[in-house]
Amino acid sequence: MTRNQQILLDNRPQGEATESNFRLVTAEVPALQDGQVLVRHHYLSLDPYMRGRMNDSKSYADAQPLGEVMIGGTVGEVVESRNPKFARGDQVVGMGGWQEYSVVDGDAPGMLRKVDTTHVPLSHYLGAVGMPGVTAWYGLVKIIAPKAGETVVVSAATGAVGSAFAALAKARGCRVVGIAGGPDKCRYATEELGFDVCIDYREHGDIKAMSRALKEACPDGIDGYFENVGGYILDAVLLRANAFARVAVCGMIAGYDGQPLPLQNPALILINRMKIEGFIVSEHMEVWPEALKELGTLVGSGKLRPRETVAQGLAAAPGAFLGLLKGRNFGKQLVKITP
Amino acid sequence: MTRNQQILLDNRPQGEATESNFRLVTAEVPALQDGQVLVRHHYLSLDPYMRGRMNDSKSYADAQPLGEVMIGGTVGEVVESRNPKFARGDQVVGMGGWQEYSVVDGDAPGMLRKVDTTHVPLSHYLGAVGMPGVTAWYGLVKIIAPKAGETVVVSAATGAVGSAFAALAKARGCRVVGIAGGPDKCRYATEELGFDVCIDYREHGDIKAMSRALKEACPDGIDGYFENVGGYILDAVLLRANAFARVAVCGMIAGYDGQPLPLQNPALILINRMKIEGFIVSEHMEVWPEALKELGTLVGSGKLRPRETVAQGLAAAPGAFLGLLKGRNFGKQLVKITP
Repeated sequence: MTRNQQILLDNRPQGEATESNFRLVTAEVPALQDGQVLVRHHYLSLDPYMRGRMNDSKSYADAQPLGEVMIGGTVGEVVESRNPKFARGDQVVGMGGWQEYSVVDGDAPGMLRKVDTTHVPLSHYLGAVGMPGVTAWYGLVKIIAPKAGETVVVSAATGAVGSAFAALAKARGCRVVGIAGGPDKCRYATEELGFDVCIDYREHGDIKAMSRALKEACPDGIDGYFENVGGYILDAVLLRANAFARVAVCGMIAGYDGQPLPLQNPALILINRMKIEGFIVSEHMEVWPEALKELGTLVGSGKLRPRETVAQGLAAAPGAFLGLLKGRNFGKQLVKITP
Repeated sequence: MTRNQQILLDNRPQGEATESNFRLVTAEVPALQDGQVLVRHHYLSLDPYMRGRMNDSKSYADAQPLGEVMIGGTVGEVVESRNPKFARGDQVVGMGGWQEYSVVDGDAPGMLRKVDTTHVPLSHYLGAVGMPGVTAWYGLVKIIAPKAGETVVVSAATGAVGSAFAALAKARGCRVVGIAGGPDKCRYATEELGFDVCIDYREHGDIKAMSRALKEACPDGIDGYFENVGGYILDAVLLRANAFARVAVCGMIAGYDGQPLPLQNPALILINRMKIEGFIVSEHMEVWPEALKELGTLVGSGKLRPRETVAQGLAAAPGAFLGLLKGRNFGKQLVKITP
């Protein structure tokens, strides 16, 4: 039998998440039933949304059940198949979870998808050409819907979503301003990711300082904002928003530990006649083919060169995940599962 | 010469607006030039947006200049015309301001419009069949866009906007819940205006109490909210909002005196995948004909019977306006200018 290391959610965070919320166990891979496929994971994706699932509160998705394998996107290869649609050696993307292997019903729609690694490295299907990339695409194209020449801003600028956002917005003729933590990330944003300007939030740690930095970075005001973090940055953006500005709310990572983060002056929504819209990309599957096609072309042509931070081995996943929540990753955070 | 009483904005409010911000003067009506029309005002409309104009801060509209006649909608009759489009005796609606007479360029688009009082009383062109009615229409139809069976909520429920909102939403098969101040207004909302339920905010003066009241009034949750007031009511609505709920932000009267009113938990915008959109109806003139037609039909057929509070004489306007800001009016607040 094949041994399968797994990480379960053992207990829910009281405030901040910690490594003790997780538990590493070893199970055995069961024998395949007809129609099933056994996938060996090469990479596990770590994403901020997972923090929300760890809570038991009402949210857009069901809470992660205790004692079960943590959910998560994975890429890997088929090592055994009892389904005619998949063959040993196929490279696939799916939601295999925090474990070395997963057994998947190969007939369930959307559960497992074969991918082509001729022009796009396998791991990128968890990032720029996967859920984070489509997230950037949906918020930019469907909510912000910018015109050429408009100014758009994104927080968590060097992350998987932010870097895809920059490439997509530049392709539409926008001025693109990023917000990231620290000089290295900001330099990378402008030198490698195509941002026109990147603001270091560590140097602009309150609404007044951030508002001043945004004024300088956005001389024509802000037409669109892609929200990944929440808190005072959104307050500052509202102060610099143009009439009819649009805000796509994708994440509010700053509030995941339970403390509410008030929006200081919602009257600006009226004064600026703004639209603020929250979304979850998994509820808009109809856009994925169009979005993935554009993202794949951007990566294949070198216009989007996403950076990755790779933790080694499944046991490193909890620590890497907690680092992600604190912005310690640089680019897409992955865990390499295979040695 | 004809004497013309006028009320000017004398100075800007420091915090709360007071009667001393205004000044009553008497001018003389100038002789008409070619193309001009002299209108004698019968009614002046008092509306919450005027409070915003009294401030000198950046807002969606220019500040009301000091020393000039306060802006405001008016209905009246043509008493003299040097424009072939208008004749003495015509009943008209326009933006004549806080004064007894106005001289209008009859050729300027949208400045003066003849109205038919066969089925709709003249004063209603300042309320249900005027700017407030179209405001309700735009927020409901263009932003909330409800399906039959959905639950929609409006604050300031018995005001000019709220009462039109109720009739328009009932016509679309919605459950309509109002929020108003005091048992008289709440009784009127359900008995006369067609609201299914009306919540007295004076009995539910904080977010917890309001949230409980909304839960009871909206057993299937809230799909749409029309925001007239701001503050804790919006916080409570967000706690009861369904997935994909829409909020049309028309006014935040509670914040007009300058104190910002934070939104306590904007993460709910993401959790509920909500859309929050601010608007000003004067920027959407393209919808006015369609909206006014529906509103006129609702009034003409008795399905919308808006209530009015009428102050007597121009000199009463400042006091009536300050009362409006505190919710002392009952229905549309007007000033009768002619004796």
